Amino acid sequence: MIIVLQPGVNDEQIRHVIERVEALGLQAHLSRGTYRTIIGVIGDESQLQSAPLGAIPGVANVIPILPPFKLASREAHGEPSVVDVAGVKIGGGHLGMIAGPCAIESHERLDAIAGEVRKAGANLLRGGAFKPRTSPYAFQGLGEAGLKILRDVGDRHGMPVVTEVMDPRYVELVAEYADMLQIGARNMQNFSLLTEVGRVSKPVLLKRGMSATVKDLLMSAEYIMSQGNSQVVLCERGVRSFDTDTRNLFDVAAVPLAKSLSHLPIIVDPSHATGRPDLVPACALAGVAAGADGVHIEVHNCPEEALSDGPQALLPQQYAAVATQIRALAELLGKTIASAATAMAT
Amino acid sequence: MIIVLQPGVNDEQIRHVIERVEALGLQAHLSRGTYRTIIGVIGDESQLQSAPLGAIPGVANVIPILPPFKLASREAHGEPSVVDVAGVKIGGGHLGMIAGPCAIESHERLDAIAGEVRKAGANLLRGGAFKPRTSPYAFQGLGEAGLKILRDVGDRHGMPVVTEVMDPRYVELVAEYADMLQIGARNMQNFSLLTEVGRVSKPVLLKRGMSATVKDLLMSAEYIMSQGNSQVVLCERGVRSFDTDTRNLFDVAAVPLAKSLSHLPIIVDPSHATGRPDLVPACALAGVAAGADGVHIEVHNCPEEALSDGPQALLPQQYAAVATQIRALAELLGKTIASAATAMAT
Amino acid sequence: MIIVLQPGVNDEQIRHVIERVEALGLQAHLSRGTYRTIIGVIGDESQLQSAPLGAIPGVANVIPILPPFKLASREAHGEPSVVDVAGVKIGGGHLGMIAGPCAIESHERLDAIAGEVRKAGANLLRGGAFKPRTSPYAFQGLGEAGLKILRDVGDRHGMPVVTEVMDPRYVELVAEYADMLQIGARNMQNFSLLTEVGRVSKPVLLKRGMSATVKDLLMSAEYIMSQGNSQVVLCERGVRSFDTDTRNLFDVAAVPLAKSLSHLPIIVDPSHATGRPDLVPACALAGVAAGADGVHIEVHNCPEEALSDGPQALLPQQYAAVATQIRALAELLGKTIASAATAMAT
Amino acid sequence: MIIVLQPGVNDEQIRHVIERVEALGLQAHLSRGTYRTIIGVIGDESQLQSAPLGAIPGVANVIPILPPFKLASREAHGEPSVVDVAGVKIGGGHLGMIAGPCAIESHERLDAIAGEVRKAGANLLRGGAFKPRTSPYAFQGLGEAGLKILRDVGDRHGMPVVTEVMDPRYVELVAEYADMLQIGARNMQNFSLLTEVGRVSKPVLLKRGMSATVKDLLMSAEYIMSQGNSQVVLCERGVRSFDTDTRNLFDVAAVPLAKSLSHLPIIVDPSHATGRPDLVPACALAGVAAGADGVHIEVHNCPEEALSDGPQALLPQQYAAVATQIRALAELLGKTIASAATAMAT
Repeated sequence: MIIVLQPGVNDEQIRHVIERVEALGLQAHLSRGTYRTIIGVIGDESQLQSAPLGAIPGVANVIPILPPFKLASREAHGEPSVVDVAGVKIGGGHLGMIAGPCAIESHERLDAIAGEVRKAGANLLRGGAFKPRTSPYAFQGLGEAGLKILRDVGDRHGMPVVTEVMDPRYVELVAEYADMLQIGARNMQNFSLLTEVGRVSKPVLLKRGMSATVKDLLMSAEYIMSQGNSQVVLCERGVRSFDTDTRNLFDVAAVPLAKSLSHLPIIVDPSHATGRPDLVPACALAGVAAGADGVHIEVHNCPEEALSDGPQALLPQQYAAVATQIRALAELLGKTIASAATAMAT
Repeated sequence: MIIVLQPGVNDEQIRHVIERVEALGLQAHLSRGTYRTIIGVIGDESQLQSAPLGAIPGVANVIPILPPFKLASREAHGEPSVVDVAGVKIGGGHLGMIAGPCAIESHERLDAIAGEVRKAGANLLRGGAFKPRTSPYAFQGLGEAGLKILRDVGDRHGMPVVTEVMDPRYVELVAEYADMLQIGARNMQNFSLLTEVGRVSKPVLLKRGMSATVKDLLMSAEYIMSQGNSQVVLCERGVRSFDTDTRNLFDVAAVPLAKSLSHLPIIVDPSHATGRPDLVPACALAGVAAGADGVHIEVHNCPEEALSDGPQALLPQQYAAVATQIRALAELLGKTIASAATAMAT
Repeated sequence: MIIVLQPGVNDEQIRHVIERVEALGLQAHLSRGTYRTIIGVIGDESQLQSAPLGAIPGVANVIPILPPFKLASREAHGEPSVVDVAGVKIGGGHLGMIAGPCAIESHERLDAIAGEVRKAGANLLRGGAFKPRTSPYAFQGLGEAGLKILRDVGDRHGMPVVTEVMDPRYVELVAEYADMLQIGARNMQNFSLLTEVGRVSKPVLLKRGMSATVKDLLMSAEYIMSQGNSQVVLCERGVRSFDTDTRNLFDVAAVPLAKSLSHLPIIVDPSHATGRPDLVPACALAGVAAGADGVHIEVHNCPEEALSDGPQALLPQQYAAVATQIRALAELLGKTIASAATAMAT
Repeated sequence: MIIVLQPGVNDEQIRHVIERVEALGLQAHLSRGTYRTIIGVIGDESQLQSAPLGAIPGVANVIPILPPFKLASREAHGEPSVVDVAGVKIGGGHLGMIAGPCAIESHERLDAIAGEVRKAGANLLRGGAFKPRTSPYAFQGLGEAGLKILRDVGDRHGMPVVTEVMDPRYVELVAEYADMLQIGARNMQNFSLLTEVGRVSKPVLLKRGMSATVKDLLMSAEYIMSQGNSQVVLCERGVRSFDTDTRNLFDVAAVPLAKSLSHLPIIVDPSHATGRPDLVPACALAGVAAGADGVHIEVHNCPEEALSDGPQALLPQQYAAVATQIRALAELLGKTIASAATAMAT
């Protein structure tokens, strides 16, 4: 950490800053420049994170050198992590192919969609039972009934299942049914929820918030990991932008950036990132080419009847086409895609 | 709602769209243009909000005409709403002057700060007992012990108190102690939490999310109001931007924009919007000049020892100076500022 | 400037970095931390600005301490600058009240609008003869014929005139007719144009680019000033944002932020910042309350016939109303507003 | 175009709007909804673009249906355009591989770099002679001397050359030396410059502005094309964002989005988009996977001595590695990459 002092700072103020630093058990290293005086702080920077050094009189600016996350950092774990979701690996050369409808609507419909995406090569089934909707008047999901459908359909098709949890009171319930818990973009900084999912032993799919930096995303991963659950998969799903021709702005560079900072796997979600089925295939391939550890795509067999986010879903045959392209690209890049398990339904 | 069809749409596709609209009990009004065909939908647009018309083959785009919120809209309530926080009015010409430290640190410190801000003219005391911190390693607040301190100090100084609630499990607890519940920016779309605060009878201070539009903010207010609690005060606190010289970008136009769309009061929080004490006074005055119904400012008597957000707090004497300017401006604009009640401590 | 080295940097790499710094005539100050090694650079940081130190092997990050502008900085000029536009002062407690139509359409129309805004208290007349239009098919302005109308109407009403120049080839021409040259937002980093206006002796109104930081704006002012023209007035006119209910996002905090970094005057343009006449008055007042040295408002006496930006213009009577409020606020803040000169036309 | 009227609009106001529309030779189609009345406008929408219908009393909102560009639109030209740069094709399945240093520094250095990138597979050589630098004190380029070096080195290596033009006065000069003219991001809406490059017969590389939407980019292409020059290649190079860990935010979805709206080729520039050599390869591959018609990468053989943007350049061997990966990916996608011509130097 570097403390930049204001022009015209006096010796007493400098002494006071140094005392504060030393009181935290750290060394202060004074450096008087031609125009500005700076103090380098030597020692464990994390002790300074809650110390409001910027508020000390004479201090102009405080510049951290180390990122504030640890367990999620590459320094903590040199090799890329591999997260195992009930037998399907994500990370370290293994691609997760997550597909399914936005919301679970009925057993029949989910079963039909699951059959199609499994055949196309998906190895994880998604579907929402609790839906974060911007309108209180929109369909909010089937709740526990939806979880039961998801579990049953996943078992029938030999696919592990992932579903969103929105409320700390339901983390245990969702963990009973799901193989992987999803934290949605709007809850990326819902710290109560992060803490709760950090206490269960299921893998977590952590989606990036709409205005979160990659480091913010890693700090949220750190929340989960600090509770003991290190099975976190990051997900880039677009950030908010001024160009409203797409729902969000797909930040494909977040993939290599996250990998430069962290050992955690990161997948992409071109469905939410673009909100446009016609752009989903190009962005899915872009994500894999950039090094993503998986692709999350919404698929529906009748988008015009979907109860949530119908207009952004791919049809099963569109999903099959892009999945074929992803497999070819994965092969070129030396990545592997696990098959779903031998399934009851097939 | 207007449905724009794709170029080259055929008659059968058009018929299918019209059937879907009529099946919802609405009228479809076909209009064939030179280059594009559109369908105007007549009737209660809200019935269409969960209908994924954009996914019907042949549809290029769906353009809503009405905003999706109702209870929060100006149409629902012609006059500006006035929210009464234990006797202190916000809205309709009444300014709320909310001040206090970011976090409640001790009884002694909060008492000292409360005494100072009350003397300077604040009429509502703020202080955090549950703190949403981006780092799991930072001070998370005193919890219920903090709530007790806040209640006691508020009573001693005759100031109603406002504090943040982050977790739906603690809404009842916080409501026992606080006169107003705050929903923080990171939880603006925590729908479980919004639903819970919609079920208590205390006023809610709803802060705008970092990448939320003003309409998104009003949709979140609608969540609370749809549960029966209409005592919502909006708060503009800056949005995320590319210019990192301020913590956020203070969107002062959100004040008149929100008033053009909604009857709810809206206040400004220049402390979080700028993150810089040197810019807080100018932005506080800007907010009031733009028509804000109150000002929320963080004040600390020793920022360099603050356990949270010290560097952005004003000193009590700085707060007193800006409060004097706000009063003069309020007088010019014909607004009134309630005094805090006769207090035990004075 | 601080050079942060990568973890695992070796001694030879460190020596190489130090050599490069010293070769520029500067001192390097090595500081080995627990986790990272940093090098503080002492001397004239501006010599380092074109030195690509970040590309030296072993360097992780280069952090500048001083802003890269000088002539525009507060350090260069302790007192706020006052810019004199043909007798009308802007800055140092003097407000410029710039008003007029987006484009000059005819002598008759401009004359009528000028008469109205002068009566309402405007002291500078604006009007575009060269218009930067996003569509090549839209009205591009009357060119030199427009400049002649502007000059004549300004003289008739005793108002100095300001108009935009878009092309380095026309700087001399525009400077013959205008009292102040405007650089539009889209040209804020048109360095050829900045250089040319830096060579004339007329004041410049420099508008902030749509995604420019305040420091970027000051760097563009530096371009002009580095050519010898120090009569620069900055203008905040909104930045691009995700909330499309306003044309841009009015960054009112840019006013005190620019003043903390620079001695140059800064005015606000709520017309372009919001694009909505109903929000212009509130934002104009917000700007003045935040410390702006003037207000730029588009006014048209028949917006529905305007050839450019009609929908965002105020009617003359709306302008008169907001001008009255601005005067009352200016008085409260101890600011003065120059009258336009005694005019031929009145 | 759809005109949405305000609630409470009266019959006279409606009549007035209809008269205005019909006076432009168009048909108005009135549709009274339950809550709002709308007017559909039938006919050539482009006639309405400069008509300020939004300013007519009673009008709430004007919603265009067609994009305002024509020559650049897919409707104008069903097949993807192919742009031929002195024998090297870009678009329609042909990838342009543009590489070279940010600035031309000397004949010797450019020659060395050109030799390396040509060997690695680049087919177009880039280098700046006129540099848009944010600081007036930074290296501004060698000017015409640089153009001569570029031309000569290009000829020696059999590579067509592309270089930036910043000033309308130099368009002819630059066109004498270069095979392709580049318009930089900061000049994307420098309409004088766009008009001038529209009048020469050389292909243009048009870079997206930092806060330009894809439609804005296409409007700027329309400016060039409206002057007669239809050889325009678009370039995605990142937009401004809140996450400052990368220089810009690489909007890879702009590639398929532009292709859905326009027949023009679009390439990607991961060097400017990320500003980080470590992220350039992943983003280059992502761009090609998303369907880009080429890749623009800055390469320098001694970044630490580069006079401009050294820290973002790849070393020649790094470029060779990514070029190999791009070729493999191009082959998978069925794209071809032209070799540079037989060259004097080899």
